Amino acid sequence: MTKLFNDPARFTEDMLTGFLDANARYVVGVPGGVVRAHDTRPGKVAVVIGGGSGHYPAFCGTVGPGFADGAVVGNVFTSPSAEDAASVARAAHGDAGVLLTTGNYAGDVMNFTLAVTQLRNEGIDAEYFAVTDDVASAPKGEEAKRRGIAGDVTVFKCASAAAEDGLDLAGVVRVAQAANAATRTLGVAFDGCTLPGADHPLFTVPEGHMGLGLGIHGEPGVADEKMPTAEELAHTLVDGVLADHTESDSTRIAVILNGLGRTKYEELFVVWGTASRLLRERGYEVIDPEVGELVTSLDMAGCSLTVMWLDDELEKYWTAPADTPAYRKGSTTQRDEGSVRTDAAADAAAPTVDLAESSDDDGRACGRTVAAAFDALATMLAGAEDELGRIDAVAGDGDHGRGMVKGSSAAREAAARAVEGGAGQGSVLAAAGKEWAAKAGGTSGVLWGALLTAVGTRLGDTGRPDAATVAAGMRDGYDALITLGGAAPGDKTMLDAMLPFVDELERRVADGASWLDAWTAAADVATTAAAETADMRPKVGRARPLAERSVGTPDAGATSLAMCAHTVAESFAATTREDGT
Amino acid sequence: MTKLFNDPARFTEDMLTGFLDANARYVVGVPGGVVRAHDTRPGKVAVVIGGGSGHYPAFCGTVGPGFADGAVVGNVFTSPSAEDAASVARAAHGDAGVLLTTGNYAGDVMNFTLAVTQLRNEGIDAEYFAVTDDVASAPKGEEAKRRGIAGDVTVFKCASAAAEDGLDLAGVVRVAQAANAATRTLGVAFDGCTLPGADHPLFTVPEGHMGLGLGIHGEPGVADEKMPTAEELAHTLVDGVLADHTESDSTRIAVILNGLGRTKYEELFVVWGTASRLLRERGYEVIDPEVGELVTSLDMAGCSLTVMWLDDELEKYWTAPADTPAYRKGSTTQRDEGSVRTDAAADAAAPTVDLAESSDDDGRACGRTVAAAFDALATMLAGAEDELGRIDAVAGDGDHGRGMVKGSSAAREAAARAVEGGAGQGSVLAAAGKEWAAKAGGTSGVLWGALLTAVGTRLGDTGRPDAATVAAGMRDGYDALITLGGAAPGDKTMLDAMLPFVDELERRVADGASWLDAWTAAADVATTAAAETADMRPKVGRARPLAERSVGTPDAGATSLAMCAHTVAESFAATTREDGT
Repeated sequence: MTKLFNDPARFTEDMLTGFLDANARYVVGVPGGVVRAHDTRPGKVAVVIGGGSGHYPAFCGTVGPGFADGAVVGNVFTSPSAEDAASVARAAHGDAGVLLTTGNYAGDVMNFTLAVTQLRNEGIDAEYFAVTDDVASAPKGEEAKRRGIAGDVTVFKCASAAAEDGLDLAGVVRVAQAANAATRTLGVAFDGCTLPGADHPLFTVPEGHMGLGLGIHGEPGVADEKMPTAEELAHTLVDGVLADHTESDSTRIAVILNGLGRTKYEELFVVWGTASRLLRERGYEVIDPEVGELVTSLDMAGCSLTVMWLDDELEKYWTAPADTPAYRKGSTTQRDEGSVRTDAAADAAAPTVDLAESSDDDGRACGRTVAAAFDALATMLAGAEDELGRIDAVAGDGDHGRGMVKGSSAAREAAARAVEGGAGQGSVLAAAGKEWAAKAGGTSGVLWGALLTAVGTRLGDTGRPDAATVAAGMRDGYDALITLGGAAPGDKTMLDAMLPFVDELERRVADGASWLDAWTAAADVATTAAAETADMRPKVGRARPLAERSVGTPDAGATSLAMCAHTVAESFAATTREDGT
Repeated sequence: MTKLFNDPARFTEDMLTGFLDANARYVVGVPGGVVRAHDTRPGKVAVVIGGGSGHYPAFCGTVGPGFADGAVVGNVFTSPSAEDAASVARAAHGDAGVLLTTGNYAGDVMNFTLAVTQLRNEGIDAEYFAVTDDVASAPKGEEAKRRGIAGDVTVFKCASAAAEDGLDLAGVVRVAQAANAATRTLGVAFDGCTLPGADHPLFTVPEGHMGLGLGIHGEPGVADEKMPTAEELAHTLVDGVLADHTESDSTRIAVILNGLGRTKYEELFVVWGTASRLLRERGYEVIDPEVGELVTSLDMAGCSLTVMWLDDELEKYWTAPADTPAYRKGSTTQRDEGSVRTDAAADAAAPTVDLAESSDDDGRACGRTVAAAFDALATMLAGAEDELGRIDAVAGDGDHGRGMVKGSSAAREAAARAVEGGAGQGSVLAAAGKEWAAKAGGTSGVLWGALLTAVGTRLGDTGRPDAATVAAGMRDGYDALITLGGAAPGDKTMLDAMLPFVDELERRVADGASWLDAWTAAADVATTAAAETADMRPKVGRARPLAERSVGTPDAGATSLAMCAHTVAESFAATTREDGT
């Protein structure tokens, strides 16, 4: 388990402090992550990789000449925010555009896609690409739904080498796509890992067994099998990866045998002895194999085999030199690098926008009421963190409680600051939404940010919104979730509590109820609906390969949404009593 | 725990197969270990490092330009044999001599010292140096008794860079001495590791505690302390290392924060953030720090802090480029390398010696009797492996049972081959002793090899030795142990069973007993003496810092010696009955 930390809530920040100090000749810190210590040279596309932390050397350990230009660093197993991704991309960007790329996880996809939109709005040419190498996470024919695991390394490496080679942004994207299409990974887990400060692992594997089809965020495997010998495991991994062959008929392959953290180098070499022989017997020539820890999952026990079928271009980029904190290959020089960065943080800052909006007395009063509700939400969620984490860990990565606490806590502070600045309800909601998304990370953080922003836009900063406006705002919020999340009701997500809530709210308001009465009734409906998600099978997100395991447990996002609806009702009821209105 | 293996007895061989395959551009295998893929260039001293395996990247992962020329690879946590060390040194040797260097462990010191003698006999200029960086293993003033842990890396790196720089053998030895004198390490353990195929860890640390003063062979710490925060741990490590300051007043230091295997990179970076700050606050400038896994102990949880106080020469060698499978720094080129090796195994072979000796019918009959005794020993020790391992693990590394099984099994086969070749008793004992030492590895392997060789020399290959000759042979064997082992009776070693055995044997024989009766009585004395070692405190060897923990448990080496004495008596008694003699 993770033994060394100070405040678990600051684990990633503390980690980054030490990482940057130890690797100052390679990297400098910027808000949201790290970039190379030298400027991106003119004409070179910047490649920004990222995702949650807990995977070192992935991702910040591979920033340097020949590899990535920057890495966005989220909390452990949690997507960084769109703001973080945009920040790192701005700092890494030279003058030739930037490719943002991550493994294919809902939170990363959302946040990095939002960042690309933001960057384009600022005039920076940006693209996003998601890696989908994990053959166990979706069947053949549904490759686009697969997760990114250790194949992140082959794709990030080739795209980065292509950028180093002078390709333009379209060319770098094409290489990333080609590398991803040619890459397949299969992994196994022997034991789970423990988040900093937690007292139990995110999952366990029964004694004498292994989980086939691992995740790298503390997800258990998709099937339990009897623990094999090293030789049997080599057969399982080689057969599994080759069975999902790509369209390439190349016999030259790049291969990674990746350790997840606790499965040590000696064990990996024992497996590699057989895997290498099997690959040769099947007619393959292995080019520059990597046997070691490249994409870890804290101290999880397990390993994975990645194969990338090579054409001449991919082979050139796979074998190209690289010099980074944790991945070095061949001889690189600093000659291609620009000057030493002097003010990376300023480069990373978003263009300033004047957010001041006019509010009136009613709006400022409503703003205080909204801020009180955020205070109540943060208090309630702090108490519910463990329960939400436990529910999420059944078939997910267990980070939901942590994300809701970080998000609501940040939103509380942002709302209070907005109130101090005299903001009305709309700006209070927008400020809270922005900070919730920025600090919570992960899928739910982005969705909550989008939801709050949409509601705020509808409510505006003046007057006291009537019941119909509140209901319309919640409908806008629901629509924002649909647009961003790529999910639909019935997929076992927060939408399955949100839609019944909005429907009931609108119905009651149409029947003439006060908005508080309508809201309270709708919250009850949301609670029932959230409980009923226990019968569902998840259809999207990283829980998907674990659909069966999830049955019997409600969705964590739906559960927390219903809890929040109740807390808001109670907070407004209390405020209304105090106001005597 | 170690999860992936085939036959646990072949773990190291299987590991080496995979390691060599994955790193063919750096290394080739030779009997006993690995050497660089290119010949040592004329005029360059070869540096051969080594020790037991289970420490990757140490030691074979750091063979390549700028670092070691070869690595001797023993079984897990077990010294390689003198034959292995000589073999790798022969292959690595160019024309300018060879430095063999290991951490300071009794088995390594014995085997590598024997190898140096052997190499010199063959006309190769050779030196040996043992690293002593672990401040927890012996008090200040007794630095020469300290163990080598992660400080192996600073010493091996500087000595290797000095050799690369063109220094002669005396110069390389001088740099190794200077680096060692300037290097201090303090480590902590949070949880033990498990040998391949074993079902429990070599030690455990009580929940909520850590062991201060770790070993890297599954030894527990020398003191239990409450589990600290990362910040508290950084204080403990920095204060502990600096308190044992060297004579240097340099403010420039090389630093390694080393992970033992399960304490992951993110945790190390969290600790490093504080450690780096503390070192700066104390006026030090940190040069090229390394934060990661350099000297592991399978999947043990723990870490250590190493500081090397730099002068200009050490700083030059610490920062010099290196390019090896697991340690790369700066830009190296292959220009300094010789041609690609074509027949490394032939280079590694010992000069052939004609071992054929004349034996007579009596000698051949005695040879068969001796071989039958080795068969009985191997069978008995296979059954006693777990018990001996358990005894050894109380205050040692738990490898004694495994070593005795490997040694006696190899000796059985060697003895049988010698009998087939018509050898008399002396040559059967010599052949068995050579193989015991070669295959068992570790301290006890060398000692048993020396013991058997000495007895064989006394007994010769002709005639039937009388009781006085047998007793004299065992006295010779005891003397060989004293000469080689650097221990004395009372130090809680196998000598504490061996000396009473030899004394009793001589006394009974002098009193006119048959040698079999005398031997049987002496074996009883040895058993009693072995049991009485439970009251002793160990004074030499790696168990030394764990002296108190050892009290109450007998010495494993004394215990196994007494068991062997009984088995030999029983085997000879059975043979005598069969022969009717």
